[in-house]
Amino acid sequence: MTDLATVRQLDAADPLAAFRARFVLPDGQTYLDGNSLGALPRATAARLADTVTREWGQGLIGSWNAAGWIGAPQRIGAKIARLIGAAPTEVIAADSTSVNLFKLLAAACAAQPDRRVIVTEQGNFPTDLYVAQGVAAYLPGVEVRAVPRAQIAAAIDADVAVVMLTHVHYKTGAMYDMPAVTRMAQAQGALMLWDLSHSAGAVALDLAAANADLAVGCGYKYLNGGPGAPAFLFVAEHHQASLRSPLTGWMGHAAPFDFDDAYEAAPGMDRFLCGTPPILGMAALEIGIDLFLEADRTALFAKSRALCSLFVELVEERCAGLGLTLASPRDPQARGSHISLAHRDAYPVMQALIAHGVTGDFRAPDILRFGFTPLYVGYEDVWRAVEILRDVLTSKSWDSDTYRRRAAVT
Amino acid sequence: MTDLATVRQLDAADPLAAFRARFVLPDGQTYLDGNSLGALPRATAARLADTVTREWGQGLIGSWNAAGWIGAPQRIGAKIARLIGAAPTEVIAADSTSVNLFKLLAAACAAQPDRRVIVTEQGNFPTDLYVAQGVAAYLPGVEVRAVPRAQIAAAIDADVAVVMLTHVHYKTGAMYDMPAVTRMAQAQGALMLWDLSHSAGAVALDLAAANADLAVGCGYKYLNGGPGAPAFLFVAEHHQASLRSPLTGWMGHAAPFDFDDAYEAAPGMDRFLCGTPPILGMAALEIGIDLFLEADRTALFAKSRALCSLFVELVEERCAGLGLTLASPRDPQARGSHISLAHRDAYPVMQALIAHGVTGDFRAPDILRFGFTPLYVGYEDVWRAVEILRDVLTSKSWDSDTYRRRAAVT
Repeated sequence: MTDLATVRQLDAADPLAAFRARFVLPDGQTYLDGNSLGALPRATAARLADTVTREWGQGLIGSWNAAGWIGAPQRIGAKIARLIGAAPTEVIAADSTSVNLFKLLAAACAAQPDRRVIVTEQGNFPTDLYVAQGVAAYLPGVEVRAVPRAQIAAAIDADVAVVMLTHVHYKTGAMYDMPAVTRMAQAQGALMLWDLSHSAGAVALDLAAANADLAVGCGYKYLNGGPGAPAFLFVAEHHQASLRSPLTGWMGHAAPFDFDDAYEAAPGMDRFLCGTPPILGMAALEIGIDLFLEADRTALFAKSRALCSLFVELVEERCAGLGLTLASPRDPQARGSHISLAHRDAYPVMQALIAHGVTGDFRAPDILRFGFTPLYVGYEDVWRAVEILRDVLTSKSWDSDTYRRRAAVT
Repeated sequence: MTDLATVRQLDAADPLAAFRARFVLPDGQTYLDGNSLGALPRATAARLADTVTREWGQGLIGSWNAAGWIGAPQRIGAKIARLIGAAPTEVIAADSTSVNLFKLLAAACAAQPDRRVIVTEQGNFPTDLYVAQGVAAYLPGVEVRAVPRAQIAAAIDADVAVVMLTHVHYKTGAMYDMPAVTRMAQAQGALMLWDLSHSAGAVALDLAAANADLAVGCGYKYLNGGPGAPAFLFVAEHHQASLRSPLTGWMGHAAPFDFDDAYEAAPGMDRFLCGTPPILGMAALEIGIDLFLEADRTALFAKSRALCSLFVELVEERCAGLGLTLASPRDPQARGSHISLAHRDAYPVMQALIAHGVTGDFRAPDILRFGFTPLYVGYEDVWRAVEILRDVLTSKSWDSDTYRRRAAVT
């Protein structure tokens, strides 16, 4: 049995422990939902105040140049590229994950008119499925082939334009073998599009080594960019010239400030920009990324795995017989940085946990989800979360109308 | 001849004069570029600090409900609706103007498969033209018919799905007669899409009275929402059920938190949402809108016209023979809240003006553009701007390499 002293030794030996103080974490709360909304870096408030008061207030329109606003998508994209193993000219920060999925799915289908199928996984994150369905509704002949995880390989044939998968599953945390699946898609002539929303900042990524074609990802989860932060997209250098965004806004033009009447796609990633970049969101996102770039990434992703493994171990040791089932892969190499537990009454159990100071989230129909963000979660947090989980389950304190009442948003 | 004393009397009698103190305006600068980036409201920094420190930092994921983040697009949309004469359920704040144009153009074309033409104006704002071209490239058979302003009426026939026009032209300031042009489009069975980017907050708008079908608009110009603020879109109630956004992200789903695999468009305007709303941008935008809602709008738009008319009058009186030509309509009822002057050397002239404390902007090839935002520009600002314009032109101080050098972004 693992004891608290052992857990505290892990914190004492953690080379990343100092990063915790770089975040605001509410007193008395163990926050295990950074995979849904990352915590606030301490530096963000000052950066935003400067962006607002000095850059906008004093610099006004001149700040598009003087404060580097106009180059934010490329500058922040280049920083994200370092986190995901891409070249600096292969990533830009822009729009939302959903909008970026639309750009890349539509571009991938339009570039391959003889291939009409988007392959994806049943139970993929809803926006991925919905955007694919939206592309299929608009592009003639395009269809979505959504199959169970085990049938992905069989679903990829010569009709497939693009395979779109979420690298780390939002619910179970199951992680695909990126190089192997990419090879599998490419072997059939399809493009491979990875959604890195639950991967970037959570697990080691090397898009170059995986020979990835396309990717999107989220700025407000592990990257700590703030609520509704700009997302990012990646297009491998050798695909950039042949793919065209359907969202041909002025920021994607080769010379936006020439105000020509005819659209001409910018060379490189700039063509995947659309409207004016959201500067307040960009400023906050950049602080989150900069923090990541300070950390030793080998240590970071080792800690992700260690936190998850400790949680699974403690749950199995200390909550045995309390109705929990591991819904994530047991193998640390086969999962991301969150762990899901199934429980028949997951909704009220999670509400009770939150009321008792442990914030994870509920995913329908029966999942308790706990995210372990290595920059600010410590080993004793894991211990505390499991203790409270055991108390809530043992005491059945979750079994009340207060916790059973379903909120509009969870 | 108008003298300074008369101008000062106008400021003394201005019922909106107190609003100026609600904005940050840099010392020694006359800012006439609020039509490109609105000035910073004094309340914005505190609101953003609260959004970041309390709502995000302390409330974390719970703020989606507790701080009303999830309802921001609808709440702010309903406020914008009051400014543009729409019902609260007809407007949402979301994405960029460019992305919203794509949603509505694609939806309008898809809903009318027997009509394949988008009519617009040559020299319309580039992103409007580019997005229309993107829709045409994407939807089979759709074409863009861009014609000079005088030929719009003749261009609208039974093949036209949608007429897209910018209500107040970004360069000249020329304003369409919204009810008349809307009737003209509708008489041919086409939908009318108005871009209100240079109108909302600048001129009186009554979309209901004009029987408008569709509209988009910008949050960072007259609405003072900050650089890259969220934009808005309007769909008249009776069209909402029949139009479907091509950007079917999860926030547009009828029940986003049920995590179903199949997309089902939300009823009403929510179907035009796509990804997770950008909360920092929304918070700043709401401050800008709230300020507008405090002002008497009759007085506001009368002041817009009076500022523009004073500028034209003073330029013609005091800058005669200095190479300037009025490029905006002379009739105050036929223009928005900015005035454009043509000058052979407009680029270096504007650079010199900026260096001498008057910020307007340059629009290729020969336009000096000056925006008069009634909430924070006063009559003496107009006087000062014209005096400096005269000095710059008389002294030819603009004629130097410093001012002729073209910046990357202007």
